Amino acid sequence: MHINPIQLFDAESSTFTYILAAQDGNDAVIIDPVDRHCERDLAHLARLGLKLAYVLETHAHADHVTSAGRLRERTGARAAVPSGCGIAPAELQLDDGDTVRFGAAEAIRVLHTPGHTAGSVSFLWRDNLFSGDTLLIDGCGRTDFQGGSAAALYDSIHGKLFTLPGATRVWPAHDYKGQSVSTIGWEREHNARLAGRSRADFIALMDGLDLPRPKLIDIAVPANRQLGLGHAA
Amino acid sequence: MHINPIQLFDAESSTFTYILAAQDGNDAVIIDPVDRHCERDLAHLARLGLKLAYVLETHAHADHVTSAGRLRERTGARAAVPSGCGIAPAELQLDDGDTVRFGAAEAIRVLHTPGHTAGSVSFLWRDNLFSGDTLLIDGCGRTDFQGGSAAALYDSIHGKLFTLPGATRVWPAHDYKGQSVSTIGWEREHNARLAGRSRADFIALMDGLDLPRPKLIDIAVPANRQLGLGHAA
Repeated sequence: MHINPIQLFDAESSTFTYILAAQDGNDAVIIDPVDRHCERDLAHLARLGLKLAYVLETHAHADHVTSAGRLRERTGARAAVPSGCGIAPAELQLDDGDTVRFGAAEAIRVLHTPGHTAGSVSFLWRDNLFSGDTLLIDGCGRTDFQGGSAAALYDSIHGKLFTLPGATRVWPAHDYKGQSVSTIGWEREHNARLAGRSRADFIALMDGLDLPRPKLIDIAVPANRQLGLGHAA
Repeated sequence: MHINPIQLFDAESSTFTYILAAQDGNDAVIIDPVDRHCERDLAHLARLGLKLAYVLETHAHADHVTSAGRLRERTGARAAVPSGCGIAPAELQLDDGDTVRFGAAEAIRVLHTPGHTAGSVSFLWRDNLFSGDTLLIDGCGRTDFQGGSAAALYDSIHGKLFTLPGATRVWPAHDYKGQSVSTIGWEREHNARLAGRSRADFIALMDGLDLPRPKLIDIAVPANRQLGLGHAA
């Protein structure tokens, strides 16, 4: 059964936010919400008649500030974050293999997928993978700050993500080309950075990217470690 | 059961395109595809392993050119369009009450919802309404060209859409505020143009809008009546 999430977009940082609604009842979770869309996202929950159980983060983002803290205040949801990201105020600190349960029967499995940052995780819900900045559509996250590591990213993707069933739908945290969704099978065979490339070649590629430092990193990362609270949106 | 469609966006015309995937097998349909995203949409189908059965149009659009003809050529899908929109080359001319079937067990019901244009339809698939430019999130389509009629729009929305179950998810053809989805229940109670407004007041409101003529209308409407073929994208 293919039950898609609701995918929301922030055009400024090209970030995807996801709402996952339980099949039974009105419980929901939100993944990687963006501060400037707090009211928009609350409006989506209200229109759909959903009650927020958890706000999840895939990592401490460097390019935008989360609304996790504000959503928590406004809805009574709990914050669930990767244990390795230094996000102290969150109620749940998630480790590899943990399960976040919501609604009558929904389960989200936590996969620790270090590489973009040391603490990054991906979430698996039904046959949907929320891959954060670990695996992007036909690409992957950068690995040059916050404990990033090209070797770790390669091992996370090949060891934990590409071993999932090929039909698993991949919902990334970003896309810069108007793309929305992919599958593990397609990425395994075609991903421009990963398919047919050795571990050593991948590390050389990533370490040679020489990308500009994210403009917001010095504001966003400290803010996100406080769930975005204290940040003037 | 809430099985969401895959929602794609055209930032230039703020148009939503939808991919509906069958629960069993690999058949799919696409609703309101945009010419400049033909390759993107084909890539989505390829990544998801989907075979396109139908290209559907909610109406002959005035603000963008469809890729229906090109998608048909590239995939072997058939074009299914409202009978009242003058889109002669389409295989299926849809009337109110018709059902478009795809995959093992998927059914899309056609609702003739005139008002934005005389021929406009909405599509109902499972508990999802694809409302075209008839009903937007907290708004509605304009009614001042292509046989548009505020009275007809009011009757379509109140008579055919607001009588659907309140939990029906509303997926519009456009949004200009970063919103993605709503429900019939919310729109019935809160829609800024429709809730608590009499038919006469609604007609007066719509007839007084005095909107600028769509820039592309003289190109888009004739092109869309040929499924976008003959148009240089």
